[in-house]
Amino acid sequence: MLKDEVRTNSYKNAIYQNAHLFKDKVVLDVGCGTSILSMFAVKAGAKHVIGVDMSTIIEKAREIVEVNGMSDKITLLQGKMEEVTLPVDKVDIIISEWMGYFLLYESMLDTVLLARDKYLAPGGLIFPDKAHIYMAAIEDGDYKEEKIGFWNNVYGFNFAPLQKTALAEPLVDTVEMKAIVTDPGLIFSIDLYTVTPAELAFSVPFSLSITRNDFVHALISWFDIEFTACHKPIRFSTGPHAKYTHWKQTVFYLQDVLTVNRGETIVGNITSKPTEKNRRDLDVRIDYRLEAEDPHRSTEGCCEYKM
Amino acid sequence: MLKDEVRTNSYKNAIYQNAHLFKDKVVLDVGCGTSILSMFAVKAGAKHVIGVDMSTIIEKAREIVEVNGMSDKITLLQGKMEEVTLPVDKVDIIISEWMGYFLLYESMLDTVLLARDKYLAPGGLIFPDKAHIYMAAIEDGDYKEEKIGFWNNVYGFNFAPLQKTALAEPLVDTVEMKAIVTDPGLIFSIDLYTVTPAELAFSVPFSLSITRNDFVHALISWFDIEFTACHKPIRFSTGPHAKYTHWKQTVFYLQDVLTVNRGETIVGNITSKPTEKNRRDLDVRIDYRLEAEDPHRSTEGCCEYKM
Repeated sequence: MLKDEVRTNSYKNAIYQNAHLFKDKVVLDVGCGTSILSMFAVKAGAKHVIGVDMSTIIEKAREIVEVNGMSDKITLLQGKMEEVTLPVDKVDIIISEWMGYFLLYESMLDTVLLARDKYLAPGGLIFPDKAHIYMAAIEDGDYKEEKIGFWNNVYGFNFAPLQKTALAEPLVDTVEMKAIVTDPGLIFSIDLYTVTPAELAFSVPFSLSITRNDFVHALISWFDIEFTACHKPIRFSTGPHAKYTHWKQTVFYLQDVLTVNRGETIVGNITSKPTEKNRRDLDVRIDYRLEAEDPHRSTEGCCEYKM
Repeated sequence: MLKDEVRTNSYKNAIYQNAHLFKDKVVLDVGCGTSILSMFAVKAGAKHVIGVDMSTIIEKAREIVEVNGMSDKITLLQGKMEEVTLPVDKVDIIISEWMGYFLLYESMLDTVLLARDKYLAPGGLIFPDKAHIYMAAIEDGDYKEEKIGFWNNVYGFNFAPLQKTALAEPLVDTVEMKAIVTDPGLIFSIDLYTVTPAELAFSVPFSLSITRNDFVHALISWFDIEFTACHKPIRFSTGPHAKYTHWKQTVFYLQDVLTVNRGETIVGNITSKPTEKNRRDLDVRIDYRLEAEDPHRSTEGCCEYKM
């Protein structure tokens, strides 16, 4: 994760370029991992940083903080956010790198919101504080054949049951810009100051305008992240138009292939909600309808995915 | 895994080309996964195949066997080998794809040996039945700097504690032939008919002859697999000289860089044993000594790894 330069440099810039916000402040790093964000905050002038992580990585984080001479500035606590005892009642700033694939898969956002409600002082800041999910449609015939068609004949056998599974599993992969056949559509935005955990289960419409005559094999999704508290706002994107990040893009293959013409629209609805078994897993459902000039090409369908 | 063609085609050829061995036989597939090997055995004429796997993948395997019309020939059991009740006392042939990275990491070989001792009829066959582990030394300056040197300066901080961790974690990666600076050395062979679980913890000497003047940053390991019961013996290799497999090679970075000349030898000892906590994890220790013409270049060291 540290090797994802887009990610880490965005946090670094957001913190270093806004030392005036961090000076003498108490900062909480939710899911601190190796403590890199905590150390950024100390270097930006924070009075004290508290890092919390469930993982045993916290032991390594302690060693790292020690060799960087920051043990007196950073307190590292291993445990769940709802169970650890913080050495302060309130914090001035929450920093966290909580984003998962498709923004919300295996994300720690619930934990950040819990920390916000319990510990953030009135007027306190959250880094980052905005997230936006986008969609587009892609032509992906070759790769879909390789990923999905493969199961039609596996060393002479019919593996259709695994084909069904493969279709229901969104693929995290790098999508080339040239594969995109629609304008991007913003489908969901999150304001970390106000969003509630319940609102992270969403069902929203989308409308994607076709930009060229082509075929559509899949819908894709990505997200942008904003640090709006910064003097000069900092934003990074995990979209196909932006520099590579480890989040890549998320590909939802459709059962059918759509034949689309420039100027037409794919409309639909996307629902995403935590699964009942595990709040960090997601059930995603996409309903779509192609409104084509030639009614013979018009089609609709729905696909369900498990992440 | 099904997409590893070297692997799956080796099993397919070993079974299909030896239908005379499978005809009317009772076969046990240890860790059957999606049941591809079980179906190979049925197609080769087996009377009955029993597939055992702990994973819920067995539910998908049942669907796959069903759509391929083999439900009457294949019995699939979910559970641990030591706990499931087989519908027969003895089997004629055991087939299994049990190999892990570095052959033994997360391998199912223990389970295969348990099945052998409990169920294999006298004179019964094991597919595959031989495995061989090899080593060589490589020049890998650029990549070692990227993987290990990286931790010296992470966004301005010293991450030495993670460097130590990175050095202790063997890397599974594709090594180019041109990186190899020694002859390969065979270090350990396993005969599946006779080996005992205790013998899978081994400590053996190695001796690697340097083939050109270069530097040595790491030792690597790979394995070959043999089906010697075949009419025409079938063997595949996971070495850097052979076609890509998902096992790739295993890279053990050394703390030091050795400066070596053609004709010199790196001698040493490699110890591999299951960890106390989990028999499928490994503690590996490599002791090495370079015997150089110029005594100033002679050096020795030892590194410990956790897999």
